[in-house]
Amino acid sequence: MTDIQSMANAIRFLALDSILNAGEGHQGVPLGMAEIAATLYARHLKANPDDPQWHDRDRVVLSNGHGSLLLYSLLNLSGYKPVTVEALKTFRRLGSVCAGHPEIEQHAGIEITTGMLGQGIACAVGMAVAESRLAGEFGDDLVDHRTWAFVGDGCLQEGVGQEAISLAGHLRLGKLTFLWDDNQITDDGSTDLALSENVPARFRAAGWQVQSVDGHDIEAISKALDAAKADPRPSLLACHTTIARGIPRLQGQRGGHSAPLVPQDRVEACKMLGWNHGAFDIPDSIRADWHTAMDRGRVAQADWQQRLSTAPTAVEFQRWQAGDLPQFHATTMAALKAASVAHDAPRPTILSSGDVCDGLNTDLPELQVLCADLEAPTDHKRSRRAFSATVQNGSYVHCGVREHLMGAMACGIAAHGGLRPVNVTYLAFADYERPAMRMAALMGLPALFAFSHDSIGVGSNGPTHQPVEILASFRSMPNFHVFRPADALETVEAWELAMARRDGPCLFALSRQPAAPLPVRSGENLTAKGAYLVSPPDEQRDITLIATGTEVGVALDARTKLKASGIRAAVVSMPSWELFAAQPDAYRADVLGTVPRIGIEAALRFGWDRWLRPDDPFVGMTGFGASDKSETLYAHFGITADNVAQVARDRLSV
Amino acid sequence: MTDIQSMANAIRFLALDSILNAGEGHQGVPLGMAEIAATLYARHLKANPDDPQWHDRDRVVLSNGHGSLLLYSLLNLSGYKPVTVEALKTFRRLGSVCAGHPEIEQHAGIEITTGMLGQGIACAVGMAVAESRLAGEFGDDLVDHRTWAFVGDGCLQEGVGQEAISLAGHLRLGKLTFLWDDNQITDDGSTDLALSENVPARFRAAGWQVQSVDGHDIEAISKALDAAKADPRPSLLACHTTIARGIPRLQGQRGGHSAPLVPQDRVEACKMLGWNHGAFDIPDSIRADWHTAMDRGRVAQADWQQRLSTAPTAVEFQRWQAGDLPQFHATTMAALKAASVAHDAPRPTILSSGDVCDGLNTDLPELQVLCADLEAPTDHKRSRRAFSATVQNGSYVHCGVREHLMGAMACGIAAHGGLRPVNVTYLAFADYERPAMRMAALMGLPALFAFSHDSIGVGSNGPTHQPVEILASFRSMPNFHVFRPADALETVEAWELAMARRDGPCLFALSRQPAAPLPVRSGENLTAKGAYLVSPPDEQRDITLIATGTEVGVALDARTKLKASGIRAAVVSMPSWELFAAQPDAYRADVLGTVPRIGIEAALRFGWDRWLRPDDPFVGMTGFGASDKSETLYAHFGITADNVAQVARDRLSV
Repeated sequence: MTDIQSMANAIRFLALDSILNAGEGHQGVPLGMAEIAATLYARHLKANPDDPQWHDRDRVVLSNGHGSLLLYSLLNLSGYKPVTVEALKTFRRLGSVCAGHPEIEQHAGIEITTGMLGQGIACAVGMAVAESRLAGEFGDDLVDHRTWAFVGDGCLQEGVGQEAISLAGHLRLGKLTFLWDDNQITDDGSTDLALSENVPARFRAAGWQVQSVDGHDIEAISKALDAAKADPRPSLLACHTTIARGIPRLQGQRGGHSAPLVPQDRVEACKMLGWNHGAFDIPDSIRADWHTAMDRGRVAQADWQQRLSTAPTAVEFQRWQAGDLPQFHATTMAALKAASVAHDAPRPTILSSGDVCDGLNTDLPELQVLCADLEAPTDHKRSRRAFSATVQNGSYVHCGVREHLMGAMACGIAAHGGLRPVNVTYLAFADYERPAMRMAALMGLPALFAFSHDSIGVGSNGPTHQPVEILASFRSMPNFHVFRPADALETVEAWELAMARRDGPCLFALSRQPAAPLPVRSGENLTAKGAYLVSPPDEQRDITLIATGTEVGVALDARTKLKASGIRAAVVSMPSWELFAAQPDAYRADVLGTVPRIGIEAALRFGWDRWLRPDDPFVGMTGFGASDKSETLYAHFGITADNVAQVARDRLSV
Repeated sequence: MTDIQSMANAIRFLALDSILNAGEGHQGVPLGMAEIAATLYARHLKANPDDPQWHDRDRVVLSNGHGSLLLYSLLNLSGYKPVTVEALKTFRRLGSVCAGHPEIEQHAGIEITTGMLGQGIACAVGMAVAESRLAGEFGDDLVDHRTWAFVGDGCLQEGVGQEAISLAGHLRLGKLTFLWDDNQITDDGSTDLALSENVPARFRAAGWQVQSVDGHDIEAISKALDAAKADPRPSLLACHTTIARGIPRLQGQRGGHSAPLVPQDRVEACKMLGWNHGAFDIPDSIRADWHTAMDRGRVAQADWQQRLSTAPTAVEFQRWQAGDLPQFHATTMAALKAASVAHDAPRPTILSSGDVCDGLNTDLPELQVLCADLEAPTDHKRSRRAFSATVQNGSYVHCGVREHLMGAMACGIAAHGGLRPVNVTYLAFADYERPAMRMAALMGLPALFAFSHDSIGVGSNGPTHQPVEILASFRSMPNFHVFRPADALETVEAWELAMARRDGPCLFALSRQPAAPLPVRSGENLTAKGAYLVSPPDEQRDITLIATGTEVGVALDARTKLKASGIRAAVVSMPSWELFAAQPDAYRADVLGTVPRIGIEAALRFGWDRWLRPDDPFVGMTGFGASDKSETLYAHFGITADNVAQVARDRLSV
């Protein structure tokens, strides 16, 4: 019979040995949660280490990512090939799959990068939404798995944790379970220092099933996991645990979290737990129990494969899972481009983006649009149905005023696979979800963050709602592709690029103010080049005006004014710095030219010096915005064609 | 007898008339919360419109800031001079005190800028902490006031809202009251779309007093406010209201929030509410009731003034309130500088910062240090006592893992006045509190954000915890002074500048890795210049190495290596870009020199082009970090003296 207690102790000693070997690490979680994890894996988890990326596997998230050795030990013991004992011996070393915090490597069973507290459980909500939507589309013959998240006190103190609890309860994500390491200890010491709330009551208030168990009592844990699976609500298991259990000197203490271990700690732990094996040595009988435990997943996958082979939706299901675009996608995009240039009237790019999003509803049903209580002003719902507790196959989630959760859900959905998340709110609120967006960039997840209200063009809502530095702040983030399209066509082009990108997130900064269509241009996706000459490329020029978004229109107007005074201005639209930087030198030189330049953007100059020379002026903002109508503000801050023309004349000393 | 119902209707019509006049605005809040606000002002609030900045006034925060006309109407009616009817007629126009969202103007009674949901209530927690600490220091003869926050559903959905609820309950901030506009409507429509939790239960779980009242029943509200004042816990009044009450077409509807009003709406509202007065016309009898209501505050201030005049601590109290530095401050700072250079051994700048913070405990007792569960690794507590539910005069707050709240508390404390907030955590977590930090910059509040773990120097915790873009993201934010000190002395100098700054926040990026002391330099605060030559200023040079933080040490080592090959390198330490940019051109030119330059920083190049020419190389990061020891990572990413020397030789083609 399976000896779960020994399976748990194997976790403890692999963790302990790895930390001793590395000389650093956090023992609190793996030693405290060993029984919880072992019980989950021994009796409940559905996963197959032989095929770590099997689509219908349960997802496991270690939200308290500093306890990474809990996960690495689990993966080693259950047979995920990349996580060998040798890998454990390189814990926290460059290139190791066993990094300080878990870093997404799904072929090794690491579902998601965690470590920034709260992100993991918020991602888990996204994963559970993805599962539910996919089950709604393809039926539970193909999609029927659970999301399990290990979570510590820190994750539950973070605001994003509450956002996750609240929305998961509202959406009745019944296949989501949080395993809370209720050990009463954080980095500062007792949780009493900063917490006196009744955490289970908070979950209950949000409509969760809540169970309290002794986190070292295997049968109690297993029974609670059964009950969690049977309940239609998301479930919290409040597991009362002793941090660092097994090390007499540290267990239940503040130092249990991550105080440096000494060899004597292992000696004492062996004594206490009756462990008589050498470092990294796991007896065959225990390894056999782990192997047997995973057979449940192997059988489940074989059955599933059988069902898939006869499922009428198998081809489409596999396309979604692979993240491939449908064959007719290029045709759809061409039609959307044609439609975009058919509009003559100036149109806010947020609406043009909504046009595309709506136009893709049939072509790309795998889109999952998330919006934080701004349905009307962002207008990306249209013909979509709302995903809810009762409607699984809705492709639009009313996230409530919870931007941070929404960003993390986008990560969770993208990491889960099968769907393409589109996150929608105002650009000023991007700061609220920035930590999650950074995770998307770090993990290289294909998520689209579409933001409206890109600048002072917001108007009278004033400086709180007017981004001036936010473009720069995301342009500075590695692996983000930031787009600020100038008109409807550039918006469609940006969508095309975002849908094609598989190795990182895209950000759209879209306007509330109307954007006039740029002059007709060739059929090529010029946005893909990052920047291009809007005025004819072979024209002689005295000055180059480089602009983004609605300021390309300002530059074009300035060009007309300058022409009247005999100055030849070239206008460059630069929707994406990252893509332009990736162009060949010669192309960049052609676009930027050798004559003086002016940068024009309703934002700060910060970062623009990459494209300007020290003597080149910049027309934009120098500080925060103000409260008035958009046109008044553009005039007030001098972001007008007249002013650009004047600055150009000054620069050329004409 | 005071007619509170008419006082409430006066709020409604001033709001309505202002919105009709402006052609836009949010009527939902002022019309829905009119009775709540009128009752608060008529019977409970302690404030004096004749002296809006009286130190012992109650603080009023409109957390649902889009409902700004509730506040402007209140300020007009209660007699705050800048908020005239003429000002109401300029609602949402450039330069108006009645901006789209409230923007801090304390002389006009606007305590704080709000509009980013959740920020207001989180600031309110900071204000209540400030009140309690100051009462603990000076007694309730001088400090005894309440914080009242109007709050909507959105603020309570935001994660930072839960952080606020949780910590306020833990700290038993009994003088804090939230007035919740429980109207069941958000921008998307019914709150049911995204919310089904029991909000009052959530407050109860956090230890709050919770009362539910009909938000249009004046006597019920007043009784509940009495009970809130009598209770030692923070209080929630769940006020069941009808959004936009008074406009038959919109009340209780989604459109009540901010749908455009038409003149007929006013006609219907007059009919419904029995109002027979012209636009902006408030009958004298109602104005008289408002005036009388504010007499309570006038009398209270007179009494308080009396007590102050005989208080032995009056001089010190007034110094704290004025934000003046003590006379002996310069002496203290000189001693701290001397102590910092007495250390010979390399020392992490986070510890040097802790040395200063501790050294100021006596000199500047008005410091209020906030830390998010990282007491040990940031080491800024030391001799400070923890502020808690039972210890009011503690100058250190264990904020728990709630960075966002902590940042907003810093704003609230600074806006409250009397204390100097110091916010402490890791730089990677700055993203979590960025929205609050942006508010500090926007409001021009003197708050210090001291962050440790500034770079890959963090070591094996890996890329989640290693900032590479975060310096750039804050350098791009208007009105922030960002410092990355190179050694202990620069750290003391940065503290000196931060304590002297009164018109905006400062950020310190501090190292976990040891920083070797720079060569001995003059007594002048060179950090104040933003950048300066570490090597003798009059030396000839072939190349200029510009670095920040611990990379100044790398540059100095490279200088030594280059000297050996006959290349003369000048080393510039550039702790603050903003301060350097503010220096005279001639000084900047002297420092930067005319020879080629190399930028060196363990971060991305983004933004550095301001100081480099296109041909100038940069030694730093090109993407996210990795998991290994600090020294290994510096070597791996080529941020070493050897590599800098090589890059310099390449640049000079030597």
